[in-house]
This record gives sequence, C-alpha cells and structure tokens, in this order.
Amino acid sequence: MKEDLSRIGNVSLIEKIMQANRAASFIENGMVVASSGFTKSGDSKAVLLAFAERAEFDPIKITLITGASLGQHTDARLGTAGAVSLRLPFQADPVMRTLINEGQLMYIDENLGETAMHLKTGIFGEIDIAVLEASSIKEDGSIIPTTSVGNSAVFAALAKQIIVEINVSVPADIEGIHDILLTGKYPDKAIIPIISAGQRVGRDSIPCDPEKIIGIVFTDKKDSPADILAPDKTTQKIASYILDFLKNEVRAGRLTNALLPLQAGIGKVANAVLQGFAESDFGHLTIYSEVLQDSTFDLFDAGKLDFASGSSITVSQSCYERIFDNWGSYKDKILLRPQDITNSAEVISRLGVIAINTALECDIYGNVNSSHISGTDIMNGIGGSADFAQNSYLSIFVTESTCKGNTISRVVPMVSHVDHSEHDVDILVTEQGLADLRGLAPRQKAKTILQNCVHPEYRGMLEEYFKEACQRGGQTPHVIEKAFDCYKNLRLNGSMKRHHSLHESSLDQS
Amino acid sequence: MKEDLSRIGNVSLIEKIMQANRAASFIENGMVVASSGFTKSGDSKAVLLAFAERAEFDPIKITLITGASLGQHTDARLGTAGAVSLRLPFQADPVMRTLINEGQLMYIDENLGETAMHLKTGIFGEIDIAVLEASSIKEDGSIIPTTSVGNSAVFAALAKQIIVEINVSVPADIEGIHDILLTGKYPDKAIIPIISAGQRVGRDSIPCDPEKIIGIVFTDKKDSPADILAPDKTTQKIASYILDFLKNEVRAGRLTNALLPLQAGIGKVANAVLQGFAESDFGHLTIYSEVLQDSTFDLFDAGKLDFASGSSITVSQSCYERIFDNWGSYKDKILLRPQDITNSAEVISRLGVIAINTALECDIYGNVNSSHISGTDIMNGIGGSADFAQNSYLSIFVTESTCKGNTISRVVPMVSHVDHSEHDVDILVTEQGLADLRGLAPRQKAKTILQNCVHPEYRGMLEEYFKEACQRGGQTPHVIEKAFDCYKNLRLNGSMKRHHSLHESSLDQS
Ligand SMILES: CC(C)(COP(=O)(O)OP(=O)(O)OC[C@H]1O[C@@H](n2cnc3c(N)ncnc32)[C@H](O)[C@@H]1OP(=O)(O)O)[C@@H](O)C(=O)NCCC(=O)NCCS
Ligand SMILES: CC(C)(COP(=O)(O)OP(=O)(O)OC[C@H]1O[C@@H](n2cnc3c(N)ncnc32)[C@H](O)[C@@H]1OP(=O)(O)O)[C@@H](O)C(=O)NCCC(=O)NCCS
Repeated sequence: MKEDLSRIGNVSLIEKIMQANRAASFIENGMVVASSGFTKSGDSKAVLLAFAERAEFDPIKITLITGASLGQHTDARLGTAGAVSLRLPFQADPVMRTLINEGQLMYIDENLGETAMHLKTGIFGEIDIAVLEASSIKEDGSIIPTTSVGNSAVFAALAKQIIVEINVSVPADIEGIHDILLTGKYPDKAIIPIISAGQRVGRDSIPCDPEKIIGIVFTDKKDSPADILAPDKTTQKIASYILDFLKNEVRAGRLTNALLPLQAGIGKVANAVLQGFAESDFGHLTIYSEVLQDSTFDLFDAGKLDFASGSSITVSQSCYERIFDNWGSYKDKILLRPQDITNSAEVISRLGVIAINTALECDIYGNVNSSHISGTDIMNGIGGSADFAQNSYLSIFVTESTCKGNTISRVVPMVSHVDHSEHDVDILVTEQGLADLRGLAPRQKAKTILQNCVHPEYRGMLEEYFKEACQRGGQTPHVIEKAFDCYKNLRLNGSMKRHHSLHESSLDQS
Repeated sequence: MKEDLSRIGNVSLIEKIMQANRAASFIENGMVVASSGFTKSGDSKAVLLAFAERAEFDPIKITLITGASLGQHTDARLGTAGAVSLRLPFQADPVMRTLINEGQLMYIDENLGETAMHLKTGIFGEIDIAVLEASSIKEDGSIIPTTSVGNSAVFAALAKQIIVEINVSVPADIEGIHDILLTGKYPDKAIIPIISAGQRVGRDSIPCDPEKIIGIVFTDKKDSPADILAPDKTTQKIASYILDFLKNEVRAGRLTNALLPLQAGIGKVANAVLQGFAESDFGHLTIYSEVLQDSTFDLFDAGKLDFASGSSITVSQSCYERIFDNWGSYKDKILLRPQDITNSAEVISRLGVIAINTALECDIYGNVNSSHISGTDIMNGIGGSADFAQNSYLSIFVTESTCKGNTISRVVPMVSHVDHSEHDVDILVTEQGLADLRGLAPRQKAKTILQNCVHPEYRGMLEEYFKEACQRGGQTPHVIEKAFDCYKNLRLNGSMKRHHSLHESSLDQS
C-alpha cells in the first residue's frame, strides 16, 4: 500500500510509521482501548483486526470504547477471539450480540451523546490507547478524520497514547467538512453556540499532542458499506403517513414548508421515510442527525436539502462512489461533528429537531422498546434514539405492526423494556396508520394506537386487554398479571396469539 | 381586604379591580384556563376557588393548565365540583388523584420543562384565560410574580385574556428575585445563556399587554404551607450514604468541595438529604432546582449555600415567616425563573447538576418508577424528575427499601412503570445502602443493587429471581412470565412476599 507521506504534515511523525501488527502489539491485557468509528464509518481498518488476530492465541482482554458500531466485522472478530471484556457504547454485530446475551462479555449500552461526558469524568478509567482513523495529520499534529467524527476528539484529548491509521482510500480533500468543538469539563462546560444545522462552531481538525502519537499505520480499505434495503410497500406506507402528517402540520401553521431540522435513525424504515421527502413538496430542508445515510444524498440531488449535519457518512457502496466522484457538489453542504454535539440535548432542543427512529415494539400507551427483544436479549442498543426522542420538537417512532410472519405483534399491552417513555413519544407509525399522541392522556393514547397502529390479527386481543384494564381503573390501566401474556405465549407456542394449552396452565403453578 | 392601589403601577388598570366571583364568571364552559402556581406556591387563591363554587351548581368543565401542583385544596374543590375535564401538567392532590385514577377526568402528566414548548406549538389549543398571582403590576403592565414563576410567563404571552390576583400578603419588595427569559418559538428559539446558577439572564417582571387584563382581584391569603417531615432514622441514613458518596467523589478528584449545582425533588427523603449538607464539610454550594424547600434556607443560614435558583419557594409556615422577616438577607441570593428555564435540558446539562429525586420503586437493573403505583394508579406525576435525571451530571434516586409495613418491596425484579430508564439513573440509595451504577453493565448493576439496596426480607426472593433470569440469559436477564409476580402476590395476598394459595392458581387459568 502507498505510504502517502504528504498526508503527514508534521514531519517529525514520519518515523512513527509502522505495520499494523506492530502497532497492535502496544495493546496490553486489561487496557482501555478507544477506537474511532461510528456506524461502520471512519473506524480502525487495520490495528484492531491485527489485535484480534493476536488475541486468538494470546489470552488478552480489553475494554473497547468506540463512537458507535464498527465495520469490517471487527466486533465479531474481537468477540470470537475473546479479546473484549467490556464493550461500549454501541455495537450492531450479530456475533458480538450473541456473546453479550450469553453473558460472555459485558456491554454498556449508552446514550451516544453521553459517552464523552462519562469519559471526561473518568468513570471508565483512563484511556490507555486510542486508535483513530485519519485522512491526514496536520503540521500541528492535529488529526483530520475521515467519514466519521464520533468520539474521536474526546479520545484524542484523553488517551495516554494514540495510534493513527491514515486511510489513503479517503480523498485528502475531505478536509474541511469536520467541525470540532470540545465543550470542556464541569464546572466550566461551555455553551454550544449552534443555532442552525449548517453553522460551523469549531475547528476543522482534532487537536492532538504529537508526543502522544506512538504509531502511524497506512491503510487503504474503504468503510464497510451500509446495507440499504430498497423501500418496499410497508416502508413506503409508513413514509406516506409521515409525509401526510407533516403536510397537515404545515397547513395548520405549526411548521413551515422547510419543516425543522430532521433526524433519522438507523433501521430500514427511517431511511425509507427520508427518501420519501425527495418526491414531496417540502423544500429547503435541513438535517441535524447522527448518521448521514443514502437518503441524505438523494435529497441533495433532488434539490430538497440545504444542509446536513451529522457525525458520520454511512452509505451503500454505490452512494459512496457517487459522493466522492462529485465531492465538490456536496462538500460545502455537510458538517461532521463530535457525537456529543450532534446528540446534545442542548442543541437538539434549541433547534427543534423532528426525530424519526425505529422501535422494536411499542405499547398501547406509547412507551417504546428500541433495544431488548422480549425484554432480555439486546438487539443493538439505545444508540442515539433517546438523545433525540427526549429533546426533539417532534419525536416520531416507526415500526412494522408485526414481524416473523405475524407471530409477533410489535404493539403490545406493555413493552417488555422501556427505552422511551410515553413522555418522549409524540407520533407512532406502523404500516396500519399513524397515531398522533400529542395532547392526549394515557387512556386516549391507547384508543388512538388501537385504532391506527395495530395489525388486524392482534386488534381483538389488544382491545380486550384494554377493556379489562379500564375496568380495573388507573391513570394507565393495566391487568398487571396479564400484561406480559403475549411474551409467555410466544415463548411457549411460538406466537403471541392466544392458544389454550395445558402446558401453559401447568407452568403457571410451578 | 386592603386594596393596596400602590401595587398597580399602570393606573389605567385600576378600573379593572373586581371581586373574585365576578372575575370567575368570565370562565366559560369548554375554556382552556391557565393558572399560576408551582408546588402550592404563587397559585390563584381566589378566582379558581370562586369558579369551583360556581361549578358546584353549573355544569361547566374546563381544561386546567398550571405550573405544577396547587395549594388551597383547589384541585380537590375543582375535582369534586366536576369542573375539570383535562388537567395538566402536574397535580399532587388526593381527591383529584382518585378522580383521575377512576377515569373521571383526563390527566396529562408531563415533564414540567416541556409544557411551555407544547403550549407555544399550540397542541393544547389556545389559552382562553390565564389567572396569575402577582405581588404588583408595573407601569408597563408587566407582572411581578410572588413565590413562584412556573409557567406564568408563557401563560401571559399566550392567553387571550388575563385575570391578575394581587396578593398583598406577599411583601412588595419580593420584586427583584424573578428572572424572566422567554426563549421564543421554533425555528428561532434562543440560546439560554446561563452558565452559573446565580446568573441573571432576563428581566424582573413578566411582560404583559395591559389590554389583555380583564380583571384584577385583591387577595391576602398566604401560600398553603409545605408539609415538612422532620428527618427520621431512615431518611438520615439515606442522607448520610449520599454525603459519604459525595465526599468520596471529592477525594477521587471528580468533584470539588463546592460540588456542582444541586437539585432536590419533592418527597421527604430529598429534603432530608439537603438538610444533611448543613452539617457537612461542603461549602459554597449552589442550588439549581425547581422547588426551594426549607432545606434551602437552612443551608443559607448554615453558611453553606451561596446561591439558589428555582421556580418556586415552597416552605413550611415557620420557614415562610423566617424568610420574609429577614428578606434582606436572602433576597440577593435567590432567583425564581420560568420552569422551562429551571428544567431546561440545555442548562441542566451545561451546569452539570447533581439531581436527587425520589422513586416510588426501582428494579434490580436500575429502572425507576416515580409515578404509578403497581403500574396503574398515578401518585402525582413525573414532575421535573426526568428533566433533571436525563440531563444531570449525577442522577441520584432515593427511596426506602420497603413500605406499608414491609408488605411492599420498593426494589422489584422489573418496575411496573418506567419513568427513568437505567440510562438515567446513576446512583440508587435506600436506607440499606447505596448502589453506584456508573460504568456497569446490567448484570453488574443487578448485583450491586441486590447487595446494597434491598431489604433483607426481600433479598432471597430477588436473588433467586436474578439467578433464574441469568440462567435464561440476555443482556438484561428476566424471567418475563414471573417478572410481575410480586404485584400479583400483593394484589391477591396483600403482600409481595410469596404465599402459596389455591386462589392464585385458579385465577391464572381463567
Ligand atoms: C430497533 C432496530 C433494531 C430496528 O431496525 P430494523 O433494521 O428496522 O429492524 P427490523 O424491523 O428489520 O428487525 C430486526 C430483526 O428483529 C426482529 N424483531 C423486530 N421486532 C421484534 C420484536 N418485537 N420481537 C422479536 N423480534 C423482533 C425482526 O423480525 C428482525 O429479525 P430478522 O432479521 O430475523 O428478520 C434499530 O432501529 C435499532 O437498533 N434502534 C436502536 C438504536 C437507534 O434507534 N438509533 C437511532 C439513532 S442512530
Ligand atoms: C415518588 C414520590 C411520590 C415520593 O414521595 P414521598 O413523599 O417520599 O412518598 P412516600 O415514600 O412517603 O410514599 C407515599 C405513599 O405511597 C406509598 N408507596 C410508596 N411506594 C409505593 C409502592 N412502590 N407501592 C405502593 N405504594 C407505595 C407509601 O406507602 C405512601 O403511602 P402512605 O401515604 O399511605 O403511607 C414523590 O417524590 C413524587 O411524586 N415524585 C415524582 C415527581 C418528582 O420526582 N418531582 C421531582 C422534581 S420536583
């Protein structure tokens, strides 16, 4: 691979160039290792994998802290090698997920906006080594990131030692799209002065003491591409309900045609919804989100979008090529910022973001589970969904009404795990319809959700539950001993639908 | 009662003076009525009660929006008269609570920091009449509030008509402690520039168009006093664990001796904890909270507290007298602000507040229920607890480990209602001990909570549950069909403790 020395502005650092396995050898058992990477973008492409390889033979375990999920199957490789004892704040890897759910490694699923503050206050101990992907290093030692910023700025500030991976597959003229603001520590945390999605408030590189850089590794691997699913009937329906709802809000004078800054979470539905805006009448849209997906660039191309602020660019392979082949036409419309800025309560609540996130399931009162299958097994984690849902102007959650061939209703009497309480959920949408929960008390919310969101095959069961619950009374009526019957049915019969079985009643008495 | 005309700086308004029942007659069926009042302070003392009297005979119902809870048994009187169809965002009245739980009136329990934004976006319709307690009206028509600000500034801005209650029992020189900043509407919401608890950022009165004032009523009733319970052994224990924990944080270099701004919620434990600071070694403390309780003034008197920012002064009768007899010594150390400023995510997260709130119950994974008894019946509401818990530097929840003569464990396998997810709970404290949940994964949290917080009579049951759950696996292990057994036991046997009863098994099969 080409060692492009022009990418190292600080010439004293040239002597730090080394192979990945040498750099990985700095990582020792018990260390806290931080790595760049946010939703598969801008992650370590070489050093962590070299470390995983070594760990297959060495009994060595680390704490691994990132921005969000990694690409390159790095989490799977590290997990399989038994190299991670503690992982945070997010992952989305099937192999690591299994290990976590088996209790083989500890996972702290955190609000993505909060990790930087937790690190600054030292609750995870000191960071021994940070591995940071860069497009180049400037003369002052500061680092120009690649396709994500994530937690890299705080990692660079706090880590005792730093390994830089310079990825020559990323054009050097990515320089200029990063907006790095460090907010300081309590009691002197600074105001984050962002008052519009497109406003630059920081510098274009991550400050870094060159003395801390112990290794520089050249790579040329591209980010793992996002798995983008083409919108289908279901996601298109959901998108159309949301677009109609927003049109109505404009008509009612509560929003203008430029809406307010949009955030869209991960998951196939959220991407489809954003894509729906391309054919809409809305214009001069802005995005203030975490992850800039394919839909962001579709909206630029459709002339609908004025600006996009995020913490990473995570796109399909074809979109990636399109972006960098036409970099000039996008470059001045994008800012990538640290995730404690993109996800900060302060900025999200000031801008009045319209947040669209995906639920695993919701309940008839509007509580949402984003993370735990049947209350126990983690899927990915809460990610940034609560950062946005809690502080947005409008918090929209989308989900299909059922899954697994209708054996599971994603609207249940009571969710088995609460990531977002009814206070942080304004709008619920399934392919059945949209429930506007604003200004409603819990019993009214239940009626609206039952009417609009549930699958016909589950409506009877849910209505019956609600009726019985109302007979018992309460601000939020429940038949507490039956609230989780659907999970019991699923466990015993493979479906949430009611089946009478002897099996079931005998289990109750055990 | 003395009509002290010197309290009306705008002389054109003197002709608007009237009796309370005349003012109450402006309220019509179906109206949206807003009233000042926050935690029993600065509320309407005359007009709402005159309206309640009228409603006993008239079939008339309103939507009633306040800052938080009202004193004077106003909610009880309105509820009994059947005069309220919808109530928000908070109440703490036993009679109204019963009506709400019976489904006789709709109650929207809101995050107290969010109501102002919801009103500005119009989701509750227009405010027809606002009833605002004042100490005086200035020449420009602007209103000097009394012992609370609450939502009064946004009510004055949005209401079509305004009735002012001038309360002459409040000294006129309360003027100067209010700090009124209106943050504007999306997309032009302003930065809230507060960087320290004691910083004034707004004006000392609530802007009000004098043309909107349709009535002025003089009153001389004092605020209903807070029910302050003297600290007992249990609350003192809880307080001492928290003080020890904070001392340790200072020793570890994570906090200074002035700590960070403190918030303490309602409930007897939170007040006792603050009182504990009076005998501590901490100094130059500040408070950035909602409600300033007796403990605030005890801390001033003990020379421990430099400044207190809140939205209301809610104190016992003796404390009330002490404050206003020595007003000069407190006045320049207090600011009362709108509740969307005291409770704003932006300021709380910037200042790094240490938040201490009371839980009804918590679970072994650190989720907290603040509002719903057994998941259904509302106690008061979420209040400001989530505004603070979500955005604080340290979120502490306190609760006794049991209640009702040990028939109820306040630590359960899975809380029946989630107001605060594990992500927003750093420290859990009962009289048994303190669990520091920072930097722990769910299974580790469970071990810490089981070890430190549960009552010995429930430890066995909870440990057994956790063990069985871990055998099943998961990031957050549960035996979902048994997660609520304790509520079932409580319902059937009057205790969460296990009892075998035939009754129980026959119910399961119904
Ligand atoms: C919730 C989330 C997993 C949904 O993502 P998605 O890609 O739309 O997921 P799907 O609806 O396709 O569901 C994924 C799998 O879970 C299964 N599933 C979904 N809901 C389920 C439920 N309630 N019970 C059991 N299984 C369920 C689906 O069947 C599917 O399984 P399959 O892959 O075997 O078909 C994803 O959005 C997420 O991780 N969110 C949390 C983080 C977040 O919101 N971040 C936003 C800011 S970046
Ligand atoms: C949670 C809250 C009710 C606790 O207040 P408190 O005065 O300490 O309450 P107590 O512990 O004395 O409990 C009140 C009653 O509920 C009962 N109770 C408490 N927990 C219970 C539980 N888990 N199950 C059943 N009953 C319970 C108590 O026995 C007591 O009943 P009693 O009056 O008949 O003895 C109160 O803090 C609150 O309303 N919080 C939500 C709002 C908030 O936190 N605001 C903070 C920002 S202002």
